[in-house]
Amino acid sequence: MGMEEKIMESKNISPAVIKRLPRYYRYLGDLLKLGIDRISSKDLSEKMQVTASQIRQDLNNFGGFGQQGYGYNVEYLYNEIAKILGLDKDYNLIIVGAGNLGTAITNYTDFAKRGFYIRKAFDVKPELIGKKIGEIEILGMDSLPDFIKNNQVDIAAITVPKEIATETATKLVKCGIKAIWNFAPVDLRLPKDVIVETIHLSDTLMRLSYSLKNKTSK
Amino acid sequence: MGMEEKIMESKNISPAVIKRLPRYYRYLGDLLKLGIDRISSKDLSEKMQVTASQIRQDLNNFGGFGQQGYGYNVEYLYNEIAKILGLDKDYNLIIVGAGNLGTAITNYTDFAKRGFYIRKAFDVKPELIGKKIGEIEILGMDSLPDFIKNNQVDIAAITVPKEIATETATKLVKCGIKAIWNFAPVDLRLPKDVIVETIHLSDTLMRLSYSLKNKTSK
Repeated sequence: MGMEEKIMESKNISPAVIKRLPRYYRYLGDLLKLGIDRISSKDLSEKMQVTASQIRQDLNNFGGFGQQGYGYNVEYLYNEIAKILGLDKDYNLIIVGAGNLGTAITNYTDFAKRGFYIRKAFDVKPELIGKKIGEIEILGMDSLPDFIKNNQVDIAAITVPKEIATETATKLVKCGIKAIWNFAPVDLRLPKDVIVETIHLSDTLMRLSYSLKNKTSK
Repeated sequence: MGMEEKIMESKNISPAVIKRLPRYYRYLGDLLKLGIDRISSKDLSEKMQVTASQIRQDLNNFGGFGQQGYGYNVEYLYNEIAKILGLDKDYNLIIVGAGNLGTAITNYTDFAKRGFYIRKAFDVKPELIGKKIGEIEILGMDSLPDFIKNNQVDIAAITVPKEIATETATKLVKCGIKAIWNFAPVDLRLPKDVIVETIHLSDTLMRLSYSLKNKTSK
């Protein structure tokens, strides 16, 4: 089967598998860094704490394994998953809201390693405008429309207070932003062609309390 | 069916439903705040952008609806879900790492509303020790073992740099912490009786790039 066909096929991968792909991608990347070029599903299973059969099912979507006894070709799988996840290109990001959370995210170096480059941060506070977070300049919100018009911005992170998250998102969409990485605890309602990924921190806390409550029954 | 039986039953709810519960909980909470005491699955479906049949399937796990045409009793469902999620009690949290991310999380007021109370923050940096984030005092890491020994700490958030996340987690577990809310981009390997919930920010970014790449085929 040619490469072309394989990529075509990948469109039919179920959303549940897609959700697990970033984790496979991270683990395979770690293996590559360690110079490991092939791994059995049993070893990968132990490392990832996922059943070997789940791994086989998931990774069978992408090929990338030789005959029985060979295991997975780490680099091949890593690259295939990268392509599916759209990691074969770079992305330009802006951070809207240069408070503690925006600063923390801007300082995160892991994103650039995966091809996500933060280009500017924006804030309304006069005392922040003109300052820098590491190498990243903070501009005023007034500069946002022009910056987006004159630069290719692929993703905007919203790290403003919850109260102004919706109006900030609306403004970003009006400026032409098509993908939003939302850290405000608000489910944004935006036009269908805008992609939104919301990080609901309190949902993760509730999953912790659920696990604490149900611990004895595990 | 008595209350006792219903709660017993809830132990058999599938992990996929459990994962969706925090979102139902948030939406039902919003409805309650608006004074809405019942809602049809059709209206809830429109509000949550989930199919009505998915909602019926999910919420049938908890009862809480009258005869056809009545819809869901908002307050009853809200309280049932709270109990399942373990939100019928309060939790004491500590934040380990008082940098930008730790500060952002400590400043988040939404957690306290749900019964998650941040009690102290800890850091190694001498210049931070003794300072406060809002009302929350920052203590030195040296004080951590005694604080955990002398106070009921239910959950520890790890907001230290990735390089020291594993040793920080190990230290917390040694002090008796049984639930970790991990913000470092590291999959922690801890004893089986320790609950870990990791927020992988780069995974959410990869889901965004996946959606951007596959947008036209949606």
